[in-house]
Amino acid sequence: MNVEIVFSPKKSQDYTIFIDSDFQIRLDGRVAIVTNPKVAGLHLQALLSHLVADEIFIITLPDGEAYKNQQSIDLIHENLFNHRFNRKSTLIALGGGVIGDMCGYAAATYQRGIDFIQIPTTLLAQVDASVGGKTGINNRFGKNLIGAFHQPKAVYIQTAFLETLPSREFAAGVAEIIKMAVMFDRDFFEWLQCHDLHEDEHLRYAIKRSVEIKAEVVAQDEKEQGVRAVLNYGHTFGHVIENETGYSQYLHGEAVAIGMVMANMLAQSLADMRQEEADAILKLLQRYDLPTSYEIDSVEQFYQAFFHDKKASDHAIAFILPKGIGAYQIRQDISKDQLLSVLREMEA
Amino acid sequence: MNVEIVFSPKKSQDYTIFIDSDFQIRLDGRVAIVTNPKVAGLHLQALLSHLVADEIFIITLPDGEAYKNQQSIDLIHENLFNHRFNRKSTLIALGGGVIGDMCGYAAATYQRGIDFIQIPTTLLAQVDASVGGKTGINNRFGKNLIGAFHQPKAVYIQTAFLETLPSREFAAGVAEIIKMAVMFDRDFFEWLQCHDLHEDEHLRYAIKRSVEIKAEVVAQDEKEQGVRAVLNYGHTFGHVIENETGYSQYLHGEAVAIGMVMANMLAQSLADMRQEEADAILKLLQRYDLPTSYEIDSVEQFYQAFFHDKKASDHAIAFILPKGIGAYQIRQDISKDQLLSVLREMEA
Repeated sequence: MNVEIVFSPKKSQDYTIFIDSDFQIRLDGRVAIVTNPKVAGLHLQALLSHLVADEIFIITLPDGEAYKNQQSIDLIHENLFNHRFNRKSTLIALGGGVIGDMCGYAAATYQRGIDFIQIPTTLLAQVDASVGGKTGINNRFGKNLIGAFHQPKAVYIQTAFLETLPSREFAAGVAEIIKMAVMFDRDFFEWLQCHDLHEDEHLRYAIKRSVEIKAEVVAQDEKEQGVRAVLNYGHTFGHVIENETGYSQYLHGEAVAIGMVMANMLAQSLADMRQEEADAILKLLQRYDLPTSYEIDSVEQFYQAFFHDKKASDHAIAFILPKGIGAYQIRQDISKDQLLSVLREMEA
Repeated sequence: MNVEIVFSPKKSQDYTIFIDSDFQIRLDGRVAIVTNPKVAGLHLQALLSHLVADEIFIITLPDGEAYKNQQSIDLIHENLFNHRFNRKSTLIALGGGVIGDMCGYAAATYQRGIDFIQIPTTLLAQVDASVGGKTGINNRFGKNLIGAFHQPKAVYIQTAFLETLPSREFAAGVAEIIKMAVMFDRDFFEWLQCHDLHEDEHLRYAIKRSVEIKAEVVAQDEKEQGVRAVLNYGHTFGHVIENETGYSQYLHGEAVAIGMVMANMLAQSLADMRQEEADAILKLLQRYDLPTSYEIDSVEQFYQAFFHDKKASDHAIAFILPKGIGAYQIRQDISKDQLLSVLREMEA
């Protein structure tokens, strides 16, 4: 299978997402591949064998979310200036979501914006982060709080890169695939119930379908002023869990898996999800060994943490909730009492 | 006179440039005014008397180009996070080009972009920097090398703010007005020859005409891939002069004035400008006490410095040159010898 999805976040910015395609990249001008030492060891040779450019530079950043900060952006920029990169140069992100977000933000802000290409090497990045143009870094106030919207010129998804992916990271990517299905596509959810994503062919279809859904959503709402927020199903709860556990205990997709279960509980309490639907989602998450419960120490503290999310408006939090499977709602009318009663179900 | 220019850099991003209009600003949500201590002392009270918002915060940055760096952006962002600014909040730039560029870049990168309003308090910023959405900061490699395109929601130009402007800064703004006329509008140039911009009414017309020209140019080419580059007439030479003199001897507009004279000399050597045209431009610059000559220490060094400009491509420098008065050309075919012979005319 060789899939090419032409994605148009804006009329002027079409770009193509290639899935297991020929993977031949030909670029004019200087090119820098931004990656980390581990990914470089695994996949750089493969990329270089498919890349032709006038001059190629490799910039490696230390591995991990802890380095997703302004210092790393400065480091990328220093390298670009030292090697005389100009507005016609291109950056290539080779790595997971952290590398993609940083490389994208470095490209967005170098000389007011240069081209970049996404080559995601984790399942999570392949189905989610690499498509849609969100770029950014963390700071001491939280995750992704500094950033820009900057669409890549192209996205190359190679499932071969996933062969070396640890199983926990694979599962974390599956969580985002399940998220897409629950929110937008009941048929896809039912397909997921009876196909194992550890089989190549099924995995490729699931990636394709997830990227299609994401591309449709972002094309409707690039700057997340409406429907794009639905992609945050499970994330409002998940972010608090990641924060409380210092971003060390759970992978992002794992925290989102727990967050989806909590969002489902809230939907059930509003009579917007039946028990067997919640059970079906839970079962699918568990099949991939994803965590589905969390011990809340203090429900009051957990509740207060919602308001530190950047998506929170001044006085209301928008909750992204399923309506059954395959449909969604955005609710700003959830009372504190309704929330606390859901949180108490997970109280330690 | 009460002028409103509706400016459309992109269909989705119309905004209005108000010139000496009623100046009533009503904003929802949190608002931060970004300014410096000197400008705040002169103009903050006037702005506050015309501004209504839910909550208003004032952020002052140290005065001067030396502080146009990432640390100042971090300082703005820290304040915004501390005061729980969200995606519906607005920044207002009150100051000259440095404040406008920094405030705009802080807005471009806070939570992937929030609204900002330009209230320029120098003539240079009123006729040039505040319109067009270029935002950015300097780093050790040069000026404006880090940045983003981010259009303001509105621009309020109040000529009353210019009453306190030092005369050198006023003249530096006039240099950019003359630049617009020479490149794009011969009638405007002739009008400038017989009207003194120290008179309020004439100044207002000149600002209006300059902003109209700039808005037309940017609407055609927001990201500076074509005609927008013409606004850099005088800047290629000017940047080298600013660099050689450590950004301390000349104001930006002053360096541009010298740069225009040098660009004219190059145009003359190509037979694209007559002596009397060059003289007319020189005379207009001198009428406002702008510098028009510079002693070049080493022509070879001056020549090499062109290649450090971010607009320089790998092998060719694009020179923006007048063709007479009121028309322009972009030339990438100027040989080193042609350039050196012009530079030698200014050799010390």
